[in-house]
Amino acid sequence: MADLTQLMENEVFMAFASYATIILSKMMFMSTATAFYRLTRKVFANPEDCAGFGKGENAKKYLRTDDRVERVRRAHLNDLENIVPFLGIGLLYSLSGPDLSTALLHFRLFVGARIYHTIAYLTPLPQPNRALGFFVGYGVTFSMAYSLLRNKLYL
Amino acid sequence: MADLTQLMENEVFMAFASYATIILSKMMFMSTATAFYRLTRKVFANPEDCAGFGKGENAKKYLRTDDRVERVRRAHLNDLENIVPFLGIGLLYSLSGPDLSTALLHFRLFVGARIYHTIAYLTPLPQPNRALGFFVGYGVTFSMAYSLLRNKLYL
Amino acid sequence: MADLTQLMENEVFMAFASYATIILSKMMFMSTATAFYRLTRKVFANPEDCAGFGKGENAKKYLRTDDRVERVRRAHLNDLENIVPFLGIGLLYSLSGPDLSTALLHFRLFVGARIYHTIAYLTPLPQPNRALGFFVGYGVTFSMAYSLLRNKLYL
Repeated sequence: MADLTQLMENEVFMAFASYATIILSKMMFMSTATAFYRLTRKVFANPEDCAGFGKGENAKKYLRTDDRVERVRRAHLNDLENIVPFLGIGLLYSLSGPDLSTALLHFRLFVGARIYHTIAYLTPLPQPNRALGFFVGYGVTFSMAYSLLRNKLYL
Repeated sequence: MADLTQLMENEVFMAFASYATIILSKMMFMSTATAFYRLTRKVFANPEDCAGFGKGENAKKYLRTDDRVERVRRAHLNDLENIVPFLGIGLLYSLSGPDLSTALLHFRLFVGARIYHTIAYLTPLPQPNRALGFFVGYGVTFSMAYSLLRNKLYL
Repeated sequence: MADLTQLMENEVFMAFASYATIILSKMMFMSTATAFYRLTRKVFANPEDCAGFGKGENAKKYLRTDDRVERVRRAHLNDLENIVPFLGIGLLYSLSGPDLSTALLHFRLFVGARIYHTIAYLTPLPQPNRALGFFVGYGVTFSMAYSLLRNKLYL
């Protein structure tokens, strides 16, 4: 069996693994938040989900949309749209041998910005709180992409 | 050229590669399912997609939503929301040197649960079938995240 | 510290890193396009986003949907649905030791097809331009998945 311990002894890679796991766990929490609001507010998207609340026409009234649920879903989709590039670019960046302190700065800023974005979205805080969270995360990802393409471009 | 065969000789990594490829192929099948329902039911989101079915106002009547199409799209989005964390956390987990049988148990449960989730969503089966598929996949991913953060946390 | 330079000296892996970074940067551009159309057309999804355009009922009229904004959002979601499998399968494929010229052909076709898909979606070009972009990208990803599973299946 191959010796993979190499990779996990690399500090930048371990840091990436830790921060990526944290931000993905946060993203998964959004599913729970959606389920929580759907159940407490009785707002469902599928007929089979509200079959327990009544029969026939009585159950159909729960097939509706709700501001609170839609807000959580928008926050979740925004997470997906931004965490996917972070995962892809961040993984490749981690393997490209960056300086440890620079890499940590990128990972910490991204994770902090995305957590702040979620808080600003769900509270909701007035703008530009959410925009700030979004743009910091966006800038961090672009900074890693730029660093990758400048050093390692191979087309 | 570097010797990458190391990675592909690692059994846990090869198992992850196989299961990840299978579940991503399943997710891509959702696009085909959406296209199938859109074409057979003549339900489109873009004017240019139904231009072949008539001109002007006649074509516009196909710009509509349909329960069946929306159901497939919800299943697809739920896949994205759950398979992205599995990919990120699963990759890092595979590299962290877990026990082969434990890792296989995680991968098999996840892939089985997500396939069951899709069947339950598209049939549709009564609840809690879909919820069961969702929570098993969710639990597996959290279990890998927990294992990663306990052993390898580097912040 | 481990020697990761191995990975970045592998030409297939470097090519994958470059193309993946380019296509993820393109996907991130879709967020900017959405923001651009939301601001220039004054179309918002959250009350706090249009608070600056007026108070109370006056601001609420900007909480609406718009064809142009929805089109960009559909293009963005389609990107997510297709780029996530490319990232996962492409990464594993790159590590499986494929021929450099075959790998480059896959990466270039995928990136070209997705850029063409975006142009066809946002212009919009008549069908089957968008469908062509979609199916070329789809086929490339399946070709890599097939190559992976044929050579390296471990279940």
